[in-house]
Amino acid sequence: MSRLVMKFGGTSVADIDRIRNVARHVKREVDAGHQVAVVVSAMAGATNQLVAWTRAAAPMHDAREYDTVVASGEQVTSGLLAIALQEIGINARSWQGWQIPIRTDAAHGAARIADIDGSKLIERLEIGQVAVISGFQGLGPDNRIATLGRGGSDTSAVAIAAAIGAGRCDIYTDVDGVYTTDPRIDAKARRLARVSYEEMLEMASLGAKVLQVRSVELAMVKGVRTFVRSSFDDPDMPGLSGINYPPGTLICDEDEIVEKQVVTGIAYSKDEAQISLRRVADKPGVAAAVFGPLAEANINVDMIVQNVSEDGTLTDLTFTVTNADYDRAKKVLEEARGAIGYQVMQGSTDCAKISVIGIGMRSHAGVAADAFRGLASRGINIRAITTSEIKISVLIEASFTELAVRTLHSLYGLDSSN
Amino acid sequence: MSRLVMKFGGTSVADIDRIRNVARHVKREVDAGHQVAVVVSAMAGATNQLVAWTRAAAPMHDAREYDTVVASGEQVTSGLLAIALQEIGINARSWQGWQIPIRTDAAHGAARIADIDGSKLIERLEIGQVAVISGFQGLGPDNRIATLGRGGSDTSAVAIAAAIGAGRCDIYTDVDGVYTTDPRIDAKARRLARVSYEEMLEMASLGAKVLQVRSVELAMVKGVRTFVRSSFDDPDMPGLSGINYPPGTLICDEDEIVEKQVVTGIAYSKDEAQISLRRVADKPGVAAAVFGPLAEANINVDMIVQNVSEDGTLTDLTFTVTNADYDRAKKVLEEARGAIGYQVMQGSTDCAKISVIGIGMRSHAGVAADAFRGLASRGINIRAITTSEIKISVLIEASFTELAVRTLHSLYGLDSSN
Repeated sequence: MSRLVMKFGGTSVADIDRIRNVARHVKREVDAGHQVAVVVSAMAGATNQLVAWTRAAAPMHDAREYDTVVASGEQVTSGLLAIALQEIGINARSWQGWQIPIRTDAAHGAARIADIDGSKLIERLEIGQVAVISGFQGLGPDNRIATLGRGGSDTSAVAIAAAIGAGRCDIYTDVDGVYTTDPRIDAKARRLARVSYEEMLEMASLGAKVLQVRSVELAMVKGVRTFVRSSFDDPDMPGLSGINYPPGTLICDEDEIVEKQVVTGIAYSKDEAQISLRRVADKPGVAAAVFGPLAEANINVDMIVQNVSEDGTLTDLTFTVTNADYDRAKKVLEEARGAIGYQVMQGSTDCAKISVIGIGMRSHAGVAADAFRGLASRGINIRAITTSEIKISVLIEASFTELAVRTLHSLYGLDSSN
Repeated sequence: MSRLVMKFGGTSVADIDRIRNVARHVKREVDAGHQVAVVVSAMAGATNQLVAWTRAAAPMHDAREYDTVVASGEQVTSGLLAIALQEIGINARSWQGWQIPIRTDAAHGAARIADIDGSKLIERLEIGQVAVISGFQGLGPDNRIATLGRGGSDTSAVAIAAAIGAGRCDIYTDVDGVYTTDPRIDAKARRLARVSYEEMLEMASLGAKVLQVRSVELAMVKGVRTFVRSSFDDPDMPGLSGINYPPGTLICDEDEIVEKQVVTGIAYSKDEAQISLRRVADKPGVAAAVFGPLAEANINVDMIVQNVSEDGTLTDLTFTVTNADYDRAKKVLEEARGAIGYQVMQGSTDCAKISVIGIGMRSHAGVAADAFRGLASRGINIRAITTSEIKISVLIEASFTELAVRTLHSLYGLDSSN
């Protein structure tokens, strides 16, 4: 008998019929002998309505009151699912964050989970009671409800899985797993059976929007095996309570991945603008002079490239921001020109970032060279390159995005055979 | 500087504009120097939606889960009103039942307040912070949300007023006070400036549906001066923060009522069915044999009349139930016929109960005689009579209801002069 966390998002609990469907998914796992904790989001649309009300009440408002209002959405779903479970003969009860408690830090509206006391949950799980837990929320140090920020229910689920020592955290979502690349761009994209935490982190932050990045970080730190699967499957289909049969992707430690591929996936981001500062003084403190003012203006910087200067006096600095921040970023840097001391600022908004991801590239030379050669063979010019241990990213002209993704997907043998 | 509780029902907080209006009412009282605790209901319609969902999830459902779902409605309003107050410069925060805590008994769905710890509220009130409290809910002994049953926000408000030692509990509602009778029946009905707890109890349970009966009982026990007033007044109208100027009715101890009237109001109830058991054995245990089975069948009995029997062997027993329960009550009594031992059961559903209420009648002889004479002069036949210390009720044919109310209203000098 092992413990299992099952997480269902807003579309999976959008109305009473779908909540009943979720109850059948849960029953299947209970019948298979699991101790089950379910984490639920608000009914689709509920959170948006609640957020809209807080904004209508005041454009700028107390984050603690926002949390009080918005967290009610998950409270409703947890009670309704508990009722639906009881109706089909499953012992179940709802849990709010403050009842467990799930303790968070004081950052209302975007709180982080500090600690979960799993003892009360475990006590009930041991006697066969399903715990239906409101996602997205906990109890702040001020004894008030704190929410984790949009998408926080994924993080709730992983944190609860860690707190109760669950063997697996199943994330039911509207896609049936993690793909080698975006299937809308490349029809030959394949679903990955397994992917390592590290790879998933690079995928998630690059736009494979299956799981909230924080939930993957937490899963990695706590070693929570996380299984992304579809909530649209017929809950009563035979075999769905195992892990090998149902379609999905297991995010796990790389040790669990027996057949490691060199490259696991190709990610892309089209929403990139590039800024280059030419002939910046190559001395300590310059990078801080550039990125400090940008951070203060709440502008997120993604890729950063600085080459070693030829003579140790002047260098070029290139980085990317989102297209939406481009004009504001240029303005900030113009104002900081005296402090930074660059000679020319150049930039463009027609950029895309293409990333090749794979834990296997650590031990395989030539992965990067293959990518550059492949792109060159299609006439795609590389504007900038950055690499990490398990990722190579290149900046190219945005109009070549699809071609570049397909070229690399095929090049690394990721294409599906059908 | 005195403490004030202000309670607003669902129609008063039905949308953001009305919540803003409520905020202005609160600001007026804060500006007048009061320490203010506000008790709010769910936005109109919200509770019905939540209840409908619990029913759709399962017709019979766990009352604890029902409470979890339904209590979210007040949670939303409390947060939104706190935001609206902050927006107009008032220091405010929301409080849920479990945060205060408002402790209840274990009767989920219809819980009673057991105890309120007012210390945290008082601490904040003393530093000038308005407390915005979710009505209708508290924390059960099982550490779960418990609701007080429909209309329970009135009771919450009165209980909180007692817990924080408020000088007054203002109930904002869609009527501007308590009237001498139903204005829809008698256009000459007058609003009462003051009414005693005892009178209000008789009025409320007889159909003057302004306040939940339990809230009046609690106000009486705890000595909470309760002021019924209109939420439709312009919040910024001068004088509204006092008690003498704004239209409304103060429910208070009779000692506070200087000019006691003999009769305060005329109440009526049309929804009455009468059952008479003829020639019942006049011996101990008979009343229990009649009303025990009715109570077990959840049939509420209102008026009960039993006369002293002529010879001490047989008597007649008459009582009323609601029209909806009439057929069921007769069936229960037919089944219990052997145990009770009556000879004939008679009944009719065309009854109305008219009640004359007034604390003054304790010290005034002839009040009842006046009523009987007045009704007789209009040809209204009295079927049964019961009296209490401050009330005389008569059962008449329902079609005479309006005539009887107007006759008595005029007879006791309650008609307005205009």
